[in-house]
Amino acid sequence: MSSNPDLLAAIPERCEADLIGLSRIHDPDSEGWTRTVFSDPYRESREWIRARMIDVGLEVHPDGAGNLVGVLPGRNPAASPLVTGSHTDTVRGGGRFDGAVGVLGALEAVRLLREHDLQLDRDLLVIDFLGEESNEFGLSCMGSRALAGELSAADLDRQDHHGTRLGDRYAAFGIDPSGVLASSGWAKTRALHRYVELHVEQGPLLEESGVPIGVVTAIAGIERILATFTGRPDHAGTMPMGDRRDALVAAAEAVLAVRQEGCGAPVHGVATTSQLVSEPGSPNVVPGRVRMQAEMRSVDPGWLSEAQRRLTEKITLQASAYGVDVDFEWSHDNECRPASPSVHQTISSAVDSLGIAWEPVPSGATHDAVHMARLCPMGMIFVPSQGGRSHCPEEWSELDHIATGVQVLAMTLVELDRTTD
Amino acid sequence: MSSNPDLLAAIPERCEADLIGLSRIHDPDSEGWTRTVFSDPYRESREWIRARMIDVGLEVHPDGAGNLVGVLPGRNPAASPLVTGSHTDTVRGGGRFDGAVGVLGALEAVRLLREHDLQLDRDLLVIDFLGEESNEFGLSCMGSRALAGELSAADLDRQDHHGTRLGDRYAAFGIDPSGVLASSGWAKTRALHRYVELHVEQGPLLEESGVPIGVVTAIAGIERILATFTGRPDHAGTMPMGDRRDALVAAAEAVLAVRQEGCGAPVHGVATTSQLVSEPGSPNVVPGRVRMQAEMRSVDPGWLSEAQRRLTEKITLQASAYGVDVDFEWSHDNECRPASPSVHQTISSAVDSLGIAWEPVPSGATHDAVHMARLCPMGMIFVPSQGGRSHCPEEWSELDHIATGVQVLAMTLVELDRTTD
Repeated sequence: MSSNPDLLAAIPERCEADLIGLSRIHDPDSEGWTRTVFSDPYRESREWIRARMIDVGLEVHPDGAGNLVGVLPGRNPAASPLVTGSHTDTVRGGGRFDGAVGVLGALEAVRLLREHDLQLDRDLLVIDFLGEESNEFGLSCMGSRALAGELSAADLDRQDHHGTRLGDRYAAFGIDPSGVLASSGWAKTRALHRYVELHVEQGPLLEESGVPIGVVTAIAGIERILATFTGRPDHAGTMPMGDRRDALVAAAEAVLAVRQEGCGAPVHGVATTSQLVSEPGSPNVVPGRVRMQAEMRSVDPGWLSEAQRRLTEKITLQASAYGVDVDFEWSHDNECRPASPSVHQTISSAVDSLGIAWEPVPSGATHDAVHMARLCPMGMIFVPSQGGRSHCPEEWSELDHIATGVQVLAMTLVELDRTTD
Repeated sequence: MSSNPDLLAAIPERCEADLIGLSRIHDPDSEGWTRTVFSDPYRESREWIRARMIDVGLEVHPDGAGNLVGVLPGRNPAASPLVTGSHTDTVRGGGRFDGAVGVLGALEAVRLLREHDLQLDRDLLVIDFLGEESNEFGLSCMGSRALAGELSAADLDRQDHHGTRLGDRYAAFGIDPSGVLASSGWAKTRALHRYVELHVEQGPLLEESGVPIGVVTAIAGIERILATFTGRPDHAGTMPMGDRRDALVAAAEAVLAVRQEGCGAPVHGVATTSQLVSEPGSPNVVPGRVRMQAEMRSVDPGWLSEAQRRLTEKITLQASAYGVDVDFEWSHDNECRPASPSVHQTISSAVDSLGIAWEPVPSGATHDAVHMARLCPMGMIFVPSQGGRSHCPEEWSELDHIATGVQVLAMTLVELDRTTD
C-alpha cells in the first residue's frame, strides 16, 4: 500500500485473482472465454460479480435494465453521483480482459478508497452493464442504451435467428421488459455527475508507442454499408469475358476501394469489408448478384461523411464499367462521441502526477461510454493490448498495466468527486 | 418434305410440338422449366420420352446406367452402331432447350429417315443420357460417364447435403447401382462407330456472327480452384489499416487476377470466380479466412496449365503483400476434348451442301459428348442461343435454327453410316 494516500496504488495480485475468478465462469462448449448475454455462464458470472460487489462493501441496487449497480455511499446523498463500470459479457470465442478489466478494476478502486479511508462526497456507482457486445438481435450496449433512454418498444420486438423476441429473452432472463424501457428514469432523476470507464485498448497503438496508459480523445462513429451488386447470371463456360456483367468482379473492386478509403483516413479511421455473398454461387455460373457488408469508423465525423460520398461515387462508377448496378443502404450505427475535455484533463493529470507516460488515443471500438455520454461528461482510460488483439482467446493485457490503469481510475474518481460544476 | 431425299428437311411444327410437350413436364414449385435428375418431374418426363421413342419406331432397350436407349435397327446387325443423343434433365431454374434439342431433334431425324425410306446399314442408337447437369453429388454427365466406364464404387458413395448416398438415390429411382458400374460393358462390346450430338450453343458467338450453325472444334477442359486465404481476424474498429492481415482484401485481388487471366486467353478461354466465403463474417471483425471457388476453361490445354501456373504465382504474391497465406486445391474437372476431325468434316460438308453458312466454334460448356469421345470419334452441331443465355428461364433458340440443326444431324448420320473405317 502506498504511503501517500493520493497515490492509490492497486494490488496486482488482487486484480489477478479477480480476473482469474471471473474467467473460470465460461461456456465449456465454446472457444476461449465465452459468456454471451442471456447465456447460463453469463447468469452465473453476474451472481459472482454481485457477490464481489458486496464483498468490497457496495450496496447492490436493482436496475430495471438488467444492469448490476453497486453503490458506495458518499457523505452527501443529495449530490449527483459519480459513475464507473464496463461489462462482463464477451463475444463468442472472446478473451478475459475486454470489459472485465473495467468492472473488476472498479471493484479494486473501491477497495483502495476504503482502505485509504477516502470517503467520497458523492455516491459512487459501479455498473456492470448488461450485454455490451453485439448480439443475435443486432443490438450492442443494451444496458447503457437503456439507461440513456435509447431503447424503444420496437427494439423489444427485434428477433434472433430463431424468431425469438428480444422482450421474451429479457423475460426469460428474469428482467421485466417494461422495466427496461422505464429504466432511464433513475439515471435522469439523479443527474449523473461524471462517467469514467477503464478498458483494454483492443488495438496496437499503445503497445507500439511503449506507453502504459491511453487517455481516450473520442469514440469513433460507425457508418455501415450494405451494398447490392446486380449484374447478370450467365453460363461460366460459354459467356465470353467481354460480354459478362459479373457482380463479383464489381464487388471485388469495391472491397479494394473500401480498403483504400480507410488507408487514406486522417487521425484514426478504418474501413472494413467483412462479407461478400454471391448468387447463385454455383461453380459454373457467373455471379449475377452479390451482397456486400462493410463499415467505416472514424473519430472525425467530417471524414466519415466525405468518405461515404467518395465511396458511393467510386464503387458505382467502377461497377458500371462492368455493366453492374449497385444499390446502397447506409446505416448509422453510432455517432462519433468525443470525450469530455475536462474529464480527459482530470485523467491525464492523474497519470502525470504518477510520473508515467500517457498518450491521447482514439477508440475505434464502441463502448458503454458512448451512451453514458448522453447523461453526463464522459472519459475513458485505456491500457495496452498485446499485439492489439481482441475478441479472440489470445487477447492479453499485462497485469502491471492493468494495476496502473486501476490506480489512475481511483485517482481520477477522487479528483472528479471534488469537481463541483 | 424435301423433294431431294439427300436434303432431309425437318418439319419445324413437329419440332415445336415436341419441345412444348416436354416443357410441360416440370417442377411447378421451381422457377423456369426445372427437371433435376431423380426428381418426380424428371421421372415423368422420361416416361414421356420413352413413349415418343416408341412413336417414332425405335425399340427402347434397357440400359444399366439409367440411360434411355432407343434403337433404329440397321440392315447389318453386326456393324458397329451410330450413336446420337443428349439429355432431358435441367438445372434448377433452367430453360427448354439445353439438352432437349439434342434428344427431340434425334427423334425428328429418325422420323425423317423413315419417311424417306432411308434405312441405315448400321443400328442407330438415340440416347437420352441420365443426369447431364451437375447435381448435389457434385457429379455431371452421370449416364455418359457410366457408359464410358468412368464411374467407380467410390462415386456411388458420394453424399448429397442431406447425407444420402448416390447409390441409394439410384436405387430409389429404380436403377440397380451395381448395374450402373457394369453398364459400360455393352458400349464396349458393340464397339460404337461414331457419336454426334446436336445442342444449343449456350453462348453468344453464333448470334454475334449471324450464322445459324456451329460445328464444334473442341469441348473446353475445366480446371477448378479452391483457394483458402488465411490472414488474422482482428477488431475492425481498433486494428489500424497498416497492421491488418485481411484475408478478404487478398481474395478480392485474386478475383480480379482470375478475371484478368480469362480476358487474356487466346481462342476460347474464360475464368470465373463464383464465390468467396469469409470468416467470421461479423461486421466488426477483419476477415481472418476466406474460401474462394473459381474455375478456368479453355479448349487450349497449354493455356490452361500455363494460366494455372501464372495465377498460383500471382495470387500468392499479391496475398503475401497483405500478410495473407494462400493454400490452393486445384482439381481437374474434365480434360479438353477435341472433336474428331473426320466427324467435323462430315458435319461441315452437310451444311455446305445446304448452301448455309457455318462457323467452327469451341464449346465452353461440357457435354455428354466429352465422355462418349472415349468410346468412338465424336462431333457436335450447335444452333444459336439468343443473347447467349442459358441455364435460365430466358434461354431461347429460334425454331428455324433448330430445324436446320436437325436437318444437319440427319444428313450427318446418313453420311457417317457410310464411313467404313
